[in-house]
Amino acid sequence: MPIPELVAGMMAADAASRTLGIELVTCADGQAVTRMTVRDDMVNGYDMAHGGVVFSVADTAFACACNSFGEQTVAAGAEVVFVAPARRGDVLVAEAAVRTAFGRSGVYDVTVRREADRAVVAEFRGRSHRVHRAPGS
Amino acid sequence: MPIPELVAGMMAADAASRTLGIELVTCADGQAVTRMTVRDDMVNGYDMAHGGVVFSVADTAFACACNSFGEQTVAAGAEVVFVAPARRGDVLVAEAAVRTAFGRSGVYDVTVRREADRAVVAEFRGRSHRVHRAPGS
Amino acid sequence: MPIPELVAGMMAADAASRTLGIELVTCADGQAVTRMTVRDDMVNGYDMAHGGVVFSVADTAFACACNSFGEQTVAAGAEVVFVAPARRGDVLVAEAAVRTAFGRSGVYDVTVRREADRAVVAEFRGRSHRVHRAPGS
Amino acid sequence: MPIPELVAGMMAADAASRTLGIELVTCADGQAVTRMTVRDDMVNGYDMAHGGVVFSVADTAFACACNSFGEQTVAAGAEVVFVAPARRGDVLVAEAAVRTAFGRSGVYDVTVRREADRAVVAEFRGRSHRVHRAPGS
Repeated sequence: MPIPELVAGMMAADAASRTLGIELVTCADGQAVTRMTVRDDMVNGYDMAHGGVVFSVADTAFACACNSFGEQTVAAGAEVVFVAPARRGDVLVAEAAVRTAFGRSGVYDVTVRREADRAVVAEFRGRSHRVHRAPGS
Repeated sequence: MPIPELVAGMMAADAASRTLGIELVTCADGQAVTRMTVRDDMVNGYDMAHGGVVFSVADTAFACACNSFGEQTVAAGAEVVFVAPARRGDVLVAEAAVRTAFGRSGVYDVTVRREADRAVVAEFRGRSHRVHRAPGS
Repeated sequence: MPIPELVAGMMAADAASRTLGIELVTCADGQAVTRMTVRDDMVNGYDMAHGGVVFSVADTAFACACNSFGEQTVAAGAEVVFVAPARRGDVLVAEAAVRTAFGRSGVYDVTVRREADRAVVAEFRGRSHRVHRAPGS
Repeated sequence: MPIPELVAGMMAADAASRTLGIELVTCADGQAVTRMTVRDDMVNGYDMAHGGVVFSVADTAFACACNSFGEQTVAAGAEVVFVAPARRGDVLVAEAAVRTAFGRSGVYDVTVRREADRAVVAEFRGRSHRVHRAPGS
């Protein structure tokens, strides 16, 4: 299934995700999966993946999922629970799915797992807000 | 006032904060201030600072604030509200302060502002968890 | 399937749930369903179910779900999104399910719906904490 | 200082707060204080104030604070950390204050304390949403 056009364009311009090595694996119908390897330059002072790095892989999956319907949508906020530390070299996979949508708002669940053993690293819940107009309209 | 020893060591080893150009400005007694410039490689597909980047500058301030008492403490979770987009070149300042501490847990508030006009970019609330032993003990 | 013994005892002693007319419908294996009618004495100044009332029906479902494994567990915190107002006379159903469990902690999702049309009223995510010993042990 | 007119009317019609014995102590300029005694019919199965009851006293303070500017405003969501249990007979005081306001949204902090010793019982952060028109306008 092809990546929705709005999301493909968004990811092509997403310099931050590129910097962090976040790739989009799949995206359709309110769902998205991203993937990222925890590099040496992504750990914090306790030698675990920095909270912001774990948040980022989830946030990109969330952004792709909530833009998958073809209308420009941004993050209004999020809640994250850090379940287990991720380490250097771990490959993280973030799976996002719409939970409920109402008006111009939406609630999305994203689970971040370590690819090797599917162990949960973080549970993220994002709140989205659709902006009035798609870009260029 | 000197940076607490545990925090100084933690920041020296924090490769992720270094990658993102996050610097620690002050830190003492449950408070910390960090600073970061939104670089070209930190924006998302809508040309705003990526949510994970905004989260990161807050998360590092939070980590420094909750380790400032000299005991190894990690993030258990966080809630963030994205108030206004940050743009390329914006200098962001994150100010963290302990709100309440109980047992081995704590609640910290972090406000991320644009330095130029003090406009609020995000409100972050972190939940901390003190680990049993400092490393090496 | 019978209600787990710990949960049955807990609900028998739960005066607050009784006051609010919250009944436990089912409970087993990290899941629970509660039910409550929005009475005239449960609306706020805008004639909608008070936020605390909506939270309560979700919180009781959460408490039953996280105690269903037979070990005394309490709420550490929760995040709630109010999706749509509930009105006088609406019957609300809260469906709780464990999302992830780790150490003595757990993350539970609870969706509150209007029974009549299954419309979502609120999305609640609870964080649980298992206490060391069951009472009396 | 008199209670703002919109808030006074709202509280007069707030049957749920009356049911729970929640009184409004003060309210002005984005701030509000409420007060409630934990009655025998408000405890849960572990003989602590039910989470929904603690949430309610905070939620009413939040509602009054965010309506204090004279425009009809509702809760969009909230995050709560349960810091310490409240017991039968405890008098709880919830102090709400606006943290930041932007567009039609706001972020409010509410701390719930036991009146006797000012011990923190819960930290609540509410997200508000101003509706388009005041009722009747």
